[in-house]
Amino acid sequence: MSLITVGSVAFDAIETPFGKTDKIVGGAGTYIALSSSYFTKDQNIVSVVGGDFPDTFISELKARGVNTEGLQIKQDEKTFFWSGRYHNDMNSRDTLVTELNVLEHFNPIVPESYQGAEYVMLGNLAPQVQKQVIDQMTERPKLIAMDTMNFWMDIAWDALMETIAMVDVLIINDEEARQLSKEYSLVKAAKCIMDMGPKFLIIKKGEHGALLFHSHHVFFAPALPLEEVFDPTGAGDTFAGGFVGHLAKTDDLSFENMKRAVIYGSAMASFCVEKFGTERLMNLSEEEIDARVQKFVELADFDMEKVL
Amino acid sequence: MSLITVGSVAFDAIETPFGKTDKIVGGAGTYIALSSSYFTKDQNIVSVVGGDFPDTFISELKARGVNTEGLQIKQDEKTFFWSGRYHNDMNSRDTLVTELNVLEHFNPIVPESYQGAEYVMLGNLAPQVQKQVIDQMTERPKLIAMDTMNFWMDIAWDALMETIAMVDVLIINDEEARQLSKEYSLVKAAKCIMDMGPKFLIIKKGEHGALLFHSHHVFFAPALPLEEVFDPTGAGDTFAGGFVGHLAKTDDLSFENMKRAVIYGSAMASFCVEKFGTERLMNLSEEEIDARVQKFVELADFDMEKVL
Repeated sequence: MSLITVGSVAFDAIETPFGKTDKIVGGAGTYIALSSSYFTKDQNIVSVVGGDFPDTFISELKARGVNTEGLQIKQDEKTFFWSGRYHNDMNSRDTLVTELNVLEHFNPIVPESYQGAEYVMLGNLAPQVQKQVIDQMTERPKLIAMDTMNFWMDIAWDALMETIAMVDVLIINDEEARQLSKEYSLVKAAKCIMDMGPKFLIIKKGEHGALLFHSHHVFFAPALPLEEVFDPTGAGDTFAGGFVGHLAKTDDLSFENMKRAVIYGSAMASFCVEKFGTERLMNLSEEEIDARVQKFVELADFDMEKVL
Repeated sequence: MSLITVGSVAFDAIETPFGKTDKIVGGAGTYIALSSSYFTKDQNIVSVVGGDFPDTFISELKARGVNTEGLQIKQDEKTFFWSGRYHNDMNSRDTLVTELNVLEHFNPIVPESYQGAEYVMLGNLAPQVQKQVIDQMTERPKLIAMDTMNFWMDIAWDALMETIAMVDVLIINDEEARQLSKEYSLVKAAKCIMDMGPKFLIIKKGEHGALLFHSHHVFFAPALPLEEVFDPTGAGDTFAGGFVGHLAKTDDLSFENMKRAVIYGSAMASFCVEKFGTERLMNLSEEEIDARVQKFVELADFDMEKVL
């Protein structure tokens, strides 16, 4: 099935206890598209970059099957830039620089060739921008998934509510779920958020795994315990890319298959954090992904039958 | 198989956002024994109380099959008392009162009738006291499991190392694992701690589940997402009781069965937090426990075979 990814294509500069990078390519749209490219070649990106963005990276995306017709290039402007420094525990970070640049007045355009796509992944952006993309679809996609963050809850509540009401799957972290629902219990938070519209809710808990909620069903996906988290940047977007990529590949929206999609998302995210930026996502093999998924199977497997 | 539980039998006074209790019966030994009593009737407690401790509760333990010959009663002294107040998120608490009383000079005595027990659960106590129990066993038990806490790492490091080296399973939380190993990564922490002696390590992560480590194996047990945590007091001890109770019942130390024991421990802990103190542990039925375990099965179940 055809997948549209909407999200920033950007420059990041990252500092972790393990080292620092110069400006490297990052952005939610980049991580999502790279991750989902391991599942489906029928995919399309909607984003914007400046004249300073390397053609070579756009060629790289194309080589991975990503249609970049919806990637606007504003020759006289600069690409979105984010810089951050992770603390020693890797669970928190300080933003050092945020230069919106081309994102400040981003009007997403969905090219005619993207119409009819069954799957849409809305990476973290202003909810108004996410909604613009949905509004441009002449046919309602089979599944729209959406990421967001605290920032939009603080400054664009009404627009956020409007966009959330239009999507099928919301993918956020535990802190965001609590802020969005004003509930501390994630079970109560999930009920509250599903009442806002989404039939499925994924709450990401970083090293503690992820929860998938749907109606009265819950699935608890483990996270792979890692020796070292080298750079967490993009892990959430990589998760979303694996999740939606698996769904677009299999075109099966049963809860059982949603669970598999969460495991694929988790597996992809576990690769992402092993190296700086997108490095680890550039050259994965199918065998590596299968082996990693197998690790998740072993990690969570138990059999109570003997005693029940 | 026969199980010996060592741990405080005490009074607690608890405040949570849902209310507060007067002095009620608590203590690690109490929670462990109550929890394991659902799995094995062949059990024995080693502890100490004062003359102020209610006979009725001791009778209650006996009625549940707990041999209380090793429960010393110091008629002229007072029972250990702890009082605490939980914060709104239930993940942190302030200790308001700690009166050691009979625990200050506790010399555990293992009665002759306890000798030959195959399973020993050392609840959180001074490591010197835990070791005294091991030293009194004329035959090395098949499995010794041990809980401890940060406090002993701060004030009794050498004694703690000596006791840890003597046990098979260490059961601690993530914060304690990090302090004990001086490693932030739980994978590195686990390796470091298993080098101290225990062949098995359980790292409890509260609402995020638990990890079981053994050699190069890892198992990630989910925690049941709960609408409401009413009172977390004793949840860790209840986990330990379910864990060791299942092992004593089945007498199978394979990794597969250890995983089941972790699930039983998690299920028992999920009951414990539903009411104040030990209340929920007093009248569980086998059907309730089986149904709760089934919820864990559904929560963690996924099947990748279709795509792999």
